[in-house]
Amino acid sequence: MAINSAGLQPGRGAGKENMQSHATLVPEIAALLSAIQLRCVECSALYPPVEAQSSSATGLVPRYRCECGGVLDVELEFTLPKQVGMQGDEESWHLMERASNASAVGALWRQVFDERASSPPIWSISTDKLLLDYSGVWRYRELILPAPERYVITRPEGNTNLYPVGMENCPVGRIGHRQIGTYAGLELFFLKHEGENPSGSFKDRGMTAGITMANMLGASAVACASTGNTSASLAAYAAQAGMRSIVFLPAGNVAAGKLAQTMAYGATTVQIEGDFDAAMQLVEQVCNELGIYLLNSLNPFRVEGQKAIGFELLQQLDWQAPDWLILPAGNLGNISAIGKAFRQAYDLSLITQIPRIAAIQAAGANPFYQSYQQQFQKRVSVKADTVASAIKIGNPVSYARARAVIEACDGIVAQVTDEEILAAKEIIDRSGIGCEPASAATLAGAHKLVAEGVIKRDERVVGILTGNLLKDNVTGIPQQRNSAVVKPNLDAVRAMLAQ
Amino acid sequence: MAINSAGLQPGRGAGKENMQSHATLVPEIAALLSAIQLRCVECSALYPPVEAQSSSATGLVPRYRCECGGVLDVELEFTLPKQVGMQGDEESWHLMERASNASAVGALWRQVFDERASSPPIWSISTDKLLLDYSGVWRYRELILPAPERYVITRPEGNTNLYPVGMENCPVGRIGHRQIGTYAGLELFFLKHEGENPSGSFKDRGMTAGITMANMLGASAVACASTGNTSASLAAYAAQAGMRSIVFLPAGNVAAGKLAQTMAYGATTVQIEGDFDAAMQLVEQVCNELGIYLLNSLNPFRVEGQKAIGFELLQQLDWQAPDWLILPAGNLGNISAIGKAFRQAYDLSLITQIPRIAAIQAAGANPFYQSYQQQFQKRVSVKADTVASAIKIGNPVSYARARAVIEACDGIVAQVTDEEILAAKEIIDRSGIGCEPASAATLAGAHKLVAEGVIKRDERVVGILTGNLLKDNVTGIPQQRNSAVVKPNLDAVRAMLAQ
Repeated sequence: MAINSAGLQPGRGAGKENMQSHATLVPEIAALLSAIQLRCVECSALYPPVEAQSSSATGLVPRYRCECGGVLDVELEFTLPKQVGMQGDEESWHLMERASNASAVGALWRQVFDERASSPPIWSISTDKLLLDYSGVWRYRELILPAPERYVITRPEGNTNLYPVGMENCPVGRIGHRQIGTYAGLELFFLKHEGENPSGSFKDRGMTAGITMANMLGASAVACASTGNTSASLAAYAAQAGMRSIVFLPAGNVAAGKLAQTMAYGATTVQIEGDFDAAMQLVEQVCNELGIYLLNSLNPFRVEGQKAIGFELLQQLDWQAPDWLILPAGNLGNISAIGKAFRQAYDLSLITQIPRIAAIQAAGANPFYQSYQQQFQKRVSVKADTVASAIKIGNPVSYARARAVIEACDGIVAQVTDEEILAAKEIIDRSGIGCEPASAATLAGAHKLVAEGVIKRDERVVGILTGNLLKDNVTGIPQQRNSAVVKPNLDAVRAMLAQ
Repeated sequence: MAINSAGLQPGRGAGKENMQSHATLVPEIAALLSAIQLRCVECSALYPPVEAQSSSATGLVPRYRCECGGVLDVELEFTLPKQVGMQGDEESWHLMERASNASAVGALWRQVFDERASSPPIWSISTDKLLLDYSGVWRYRELILPAPERYVITRPEGNTNLYPVGMENCPVGRIGHRQIGTYAGLELFFLKHEGENPSGSFKDRGMTAGITMANMLGASAVACASTGNTSASLAAYAAQAGMRSIVFLPAGNVAAGKLAQTMAYGATTVQIEGDFDAAMQLVEQVCNELGIYLLNSLNPFRVEGQKAIGFELLQQLDWQAPDWLILPAGNLGNISAIGKAFRQAYDLSLITQIPRIAAIQAAGANPFYQSYQQQFQKRVSVKADTVASAIKIGNPVSYARARAVIEACDGIVAQVTDEEILAAKEIIDRSGIGCEPASAATLAGAHKLVAEGVIKRDERVVGILTGNLLKDNVTGIPQQRNSAVVKPNLDAVRAMLAQ
């Protein structure tokens, strides 16, 4: 992590510990890292998260990839916090913890999380406590990253609304919201709006975990290659932590509007003379060589934070798992993370049934769908083209992780056209909830799968909306309809409104 | 409320009760309305919220203004919910309720609100309950609008983050956030980010109350005149309730970007051949004549909902009132509402001290500042000009309400230049929090008032951010800085980053 030797300015990171001055990690972080293993999703090889490397100025280098090129998955043993259920002595606690009665252990975990969810966000006016329990990510910290509290960088994030929008479970009077359930053809339907996170997208959940890991490693700069929600989230969390954020982009392929939020948060943007693949390749090389912490989709700790979407929606449903989870499918990190969360929740007896996952791709960016159609016999890549820019990805990084999830949960992959996405977006927008275009793939998929009989109208379904309506105020938004110029008198207005 | 007779289509409101078919209100609503009085802020005349009028098709007309032209303020007697503290019989309850011991009553109210804040947002998968306690507005319903639950239209909203950003109270590691406190020169400083509401601005709190009142009155259409945050919030809540929303605008003065969100939620936009004043005048006339419920700044129930910002920030501080509350000042509705909340919280012994309010105007839109400079001897209006579009108002509607608040709380009014606003916005944006331009007037004001010695560096201060960064992705956002095109190799990147 030799940031300074690479000529980077510590900038707002000044005053922070820098790995350059610590050839070894502080003991509590070293202990945490030694409890974590990274397993290759392709070949199952195991690695520690940080390795000694003599060519590095600090002697330590984080690992992002397997030697075989595969992506890595975090493995961590979960430990119940001691205070829970400790009505007897420590010995009886250990007995309980090791109880063969799985449902009792599940009840203890639920008790931990439910107690934390019941703690209101109250600050004393003069203290600097962190309110970890109030974060929709760190509430589940034992299952995500048990980082020492003082290293955690959190807004807090999460606690996003779960809107009941089905024909049966939408409260009386919410006529607009119920139209979503009517469109989907579902009686018991919820939409979880991840666009209500601090930077306006689901990426904040993974980023709070990723930046916290960067903080523990003493990084003073972080980077990714992305033009969209990831960049904005990276820049916001890096700014909070006082780290420099660097975003790599293909030159000449940058939409000013999409970048504005990232620029506002103070990110440095490096425009590469080349295409997006060149930018992706370069950011990995640059991070390894210059000691910048890499926070693109390869980073395994972002997936861990992203799992919190799954835990939180299960908790919001009082740990009664839905039958289906529907979500947009682009780079496939979200499917990987939520699928992993569901499996872990099941293994811990937090839930008694694993939901089936329906991954929805845009027809113009459907490599995962094509692979699924061929029973995953080969990995497909395409030249992506869709109005849903957040899932406009032709060669998804998390293919192997997501394939395993779909196979394990008896999931399915479907595709919807841009027209179907925009029609669904109009329903969501005009319900008053609103979302960015890619998010609407969820409703378009629900509509299609219910019509095809794949999902039954009385099954219990949760759909994920990934980004805020304000993230894209052009695509699919009517600019002229329902708008007219009239003379300033009552009759003219009356005539216009009657049309 | 003769919507249909005016030629309006009931549209998505179909199936709802319509006042046209009810010459009288249902008993529970009639009872609520009879407990509410509207008092003129100018002449103290009293009115019922809905009046008989023979010229109306329904015989009932809501009142928005005093005969003298003054704006109206809601008066309502507060009643503790019965279940609280009822350990004895009903008689002892009434004794307690009427106890002369004010601090005991305050403790009971705090208990009500704290218990509600501790209820996690848990849905049963098959029910349609409303989770009123989880809304940052309806949690305080006895102090805002004790509407029957089935009429309430809520997302829920509120529960916005209160970021500790002072030099002393910002948690370790949040280096970016602490820079805000450093810039302000404050040790104990919090920013409450109202841009984290569902539609991205503080307006949602007033709108959930206003639309709920419209719903109780059976309205199938609502209207306002605004190009900004109010329109978006109106459109979102109206859509949820299945009501038609109508936004009046001056033709040729419409920024497409600002309207996009409102259009997405399905609002009808009426562009008036005239200026903004003409649009404002016409909307009032149209609403009265066509039986559309008026939800512009005149509406007194929006102010009631807006009070929840004050209640919620007090609760987040464990009911320890801060010394100062700083907020941007445009139409002055927010000052009126928060000032009213603080006074009511004090009267109910929820708090033991009323915070001083510092209202910050843009120098180019400073009518309230000018009046304040003349000890409020006359009401000033100006031609407004500032980059902070959300407070670009030359003749604020809530002048009389806000003047009373500033005088009662020993508050002050200050002005800051556009340059000071944009400098403060850059600090907030680059901290990772971000806000729309008008919100930054809060930090610019804090910076100035601390420098002038008006606010002491060790006083406890809360600042309000009113709108989300994503509401305006152009103003004050660097488009080129920290951005360069480089060749796709390590040396080129290294050279660029070292600059």
